[in-house]
Amino acid sequence: MVEWIASYMERAGDYPVRSQVEPGEIFGALPSEAPESGEGWDEIFADLERVVTPGLTHWQSPRFFGYFPASASGPAILGEMLSAGLGVQGMLWSTSPACTEIETRVLDWLGRLIGLPEAFLSESERGGGVIQGTASEAALVAMVAARQRALAGGRDGELVAYCSSQAHSSIVKAAMVSGVGRENVRLIDVDERLRLNPVALAEAIGLDAASGRVPFFVAATLGTTSSGAVDPLAEVSEISAAAGAWLHVDAAWAGSALVLPEARWMIEGVAGADSFNFNPHKWMLTNFDCSALWTRDARAIIDALSITPEYLRNAPSESGGVIDYRDWQIPLGRRFRALKLWFVLRAFGAEGVRAHIRRGIAHAELFESLVRESDVFEMACERSLALVCFAHTSGDAPTRAAMEAVNDSGEAFFTHTTLPGNDGGERFVIRFASGSAQTGEADIRRAFTALERAARGG
Amino acid sequence: MVEWIASYMERAGDYPVRSQVEPGEIFGALPSEAPESGEGWDEIFADLERVVTPGLTHWQSPRFFGYFPASASGPAILGEMLSAGLGVQGMLWSTSPACTEIETRVLDWLGRLIGLPEAFLSESERGGGVIQGTASEAALVAMVAARQRALAGGRDGELVAYCSSQAHSSIVKAAMVSGVGRENVRLIDVDERLRLNPVALAEAIGLDAASGRVPFFVAATLGTTSSGAVDPLAEVSEISAAAGAWLHVDAAWAGSALVLPEARWMIEGVAGADSFNFNPHKWMLTNFDCSALWTRDARAIIDALSITPEYLRNAPSESGGVIDYRDWQIPLGRRFRALKLWFVLRAFGAEGVRAHIRRGIAHAELFESLVRESDVFEMACERSLALVCFAHTSGDAPTRAAMEAVNDSGEAFFTHTTLPGNDGGERFVIRFASGSAQTGEADIRRAFTALERAARGG
Repeated sequence: MVEWIASYMERAGDYPVRSQVEPGEIFGALPSEAPESGEGWDEIFADLERVVTPGLTHWQSPRFFGYFPASASGPAILGEMLSAGLGVQGMLWSTSPACTEIETRVLDWLGRLIGLPEAFLSESERGGGVIQGTASEAALVAMVAARQRALAGGRDGELVAYCSSQAHSSIVKAAMVSGVGRENVRLIDVDERLRLNPVALAEAIGLDAASGRVPFFVAATLGTTSSGAVDPLAEVSEISAAAGAWLHVDAAWAGSALVLPEARWMIEGVAGADSFNFNPHKWMLTNFDCSALWTRDARAIIDALSITPEYLRNAPSESGGVIDYRDWQIPLGRRFRALKLWFVLRAFGAEGVRAHIRRGIAHAELFESLVRESDVFEMACERSLALVCFAHTSGDAPTRAAMEAVNDSGEAFFTHTTLPGNDGGERFVIRFASGSAQTGEADIRRAFTALERAARGG
Repeated sequence: MVEWIASYMERAGDYPVRSQVEPGEIFGALPSEAPESGEGWDEIFADLERVVTPGLTHWQSPRFFGYFPASASGPAILGEMLSAGLGVQGMLWSTSPACTEIETRVLDWLGRLIGLPEAFLSESERGGGVIQGTASEAALVAMVAARQRALAGGRDGELVAYCSSQAHSSIVKAAMVSGVGRENVRLIDVDERLRLNPVALAEAIGLDAASGRVPFFVAATLGTTSSGAVDPLAEVSEISAAAGAWLHVDAAWAGSALVLPEARWMIEGVAGADSFNFNPHKWMLTNFDCSALWTRDARAIIDALSITPEYLRNAPSESGGVIDYRDWQIPLGRRFRALKLWFVLRAFGAEGVRAHIRRGIAHAELFESLVRESDVFEMACERSLALVCFAHTSGDAPTRAAMEAVNDSGEAFFTHTTLPGNDGGERFVIRFASGSAQTGEADIRRAFTALERAARGG
């Protein structure tokens, strides 16, 4: 299996990037019942090539430029394997102290690496980091903590949350799950670079407060999914603080770039945030799932999520001297996810991680230069780090047609979004997101050539 | 790494079961910053024995009898490895069709294996299965779907949820996260065998309905965490249906036993449930996380959780002919968790899984016989499947002392709970939970001998 995986990672570029199967094809390739007797490994193994790989969209392909690439690496895979083999539960400190304490330490490492203030790290009075499964869960945890703090502070009235119109759907989903309600999320206008407009935020908060509602939660995005826009954190932070609202920073994708000193401008003002989240499983060589969440106020999270039945009581927890991460997350159980992050940071070192991020940005710069030199494509907005949004010069239909032709061919894989166009309507644009460790310059040129060919009609 | 893991699984019984470290010891064994340059594998590897294993409570030890054992197996570990190596996201059908369709098929397999009616399987009109991370997440998903259906049905008033006083803490936690509120969860009285009392449930629902509240959610437990009690599903199902409440069945641990015909009495009445959940990651040889949730009403879940921004739009999803599992869960992203379950069911076959479950029950029967023959311990309630609750005949203090002595020695690991005692108060009892694939009869005898020695004062 290890050999097969190693060989898969080498061959990932040989497959059509997007799966070519039709709905139901894979389902239909499997029998309707589990076998009565155990099967041999040869039979099971044969299904990797027969059933599994044809049904994959190859996220590890060097020409996967859709969504945000989620690049695995050898050290991360070994960490995940080890976690599976040890099979320990980290719900309580006592259920495996190493699972908790390595996580605490590694999140301190990572927090320092991206320039978070000490108040977010574990040796501060109320702060610390925790690994969540996804940025969606991190947003939900932050939102329920924010509600807890607002209610504990005696604030009364309908709770209202705020984020930009470009924020990730997980903020609205967190409001749906938590019962805050999607109707109580204000999607604040953005400026011409698609960044949250702080004047509009302050106005919306003021209006709600004047109507007796409680502005309790603000999400700022560093690196939106559509275009990589970076909200003005310092201003948002001041406005949130004045309103007494919890400020959650969603840097799911762009947070990895904070390892670079030249990207640190993005977190100016972060000292005023209550929680900060980014996903090493996107752009930091760590396979999914690994979403790092730090807070300056762990107490609020614990107050919102803690409940201790008798069967979970134990002396170390009751001493108050240890962290029980079950109280920092939605589920009770938890895997030893810190292993993969620990291995990645050690095997690559800080300089290796920085080199990886710079490489992803360089790839996007190359792609940008190809777009700028092209006579069929144009930039749709400014490049943000490793994300380029571009479109056919002749409008939406040829843009979409070019993207679909390339995706259908399997030559490369892109996804799209819509951005505000010059005519006031929405414009269909293709997103190029680099950041995979497997990608080389030749892959980028090859993908762009395929797009240009498609744009010229074959 | 593979060799180390294989050797660890063989040696897991050689370590003290419960970690012997003090709080802060592991944290202190790691430097305060990530290394600037990458480290070699020899250095990283050395820390497995230096830092990791001393900080583990060994869930894979053959003498781990605490909580519920969460037994991994070779096929499951290979599946997890493969999932890490493929590194695909299953949020949408189109982001890797195999990740969705193998999951759908394997949950049909598993549903049939445990005797669920066809209405819960994917080829029914509105039903189907999905892998969640944990039973906590499954309960939360069920609760928000129940709320969605109640509100869509025009029901107005404060929502109230019901479960027995012995139900898992995740039900109350789901109410806290979802904003239903822990004060709106009624913990219904149990009978002398700690099963939910259906008369008390009907009364509580009646009282709430008469006060204008909306009984919207009932959780029945098959195999409570404390004592393995099995709620009377058929009666609970009738009462829930009459009240128009969503019935969620939490069979997190005991659900695995439903592969045995002789355990099927537990799910009489399941046809009336709206959702059913159990954790293959507890007692079915599949490493954490793998929690199987089936519903008869996927539409309610999707209505509660779906939100589609432009960057996730795609033709197969809009055709309505495929499943997008992101709408069946709290997070957006998801790993290819079906691989491990698929490998387990194929490598062991249905008969292998049944043999494994029967073995766990036989181990508990052996332990029960040792308790019954003993003059220092007695059964604290009836054995349930692979769970035995017992206590020192002389009361709480010696019971706790015996358990702590054994846990401190590392010889075996037990956890405790409290159960109603004959004097009307709570009685401290030790739980013995078997089910690990690594355990043999000798381990059980050795653990019991250690307990008896401790109970006699050393």
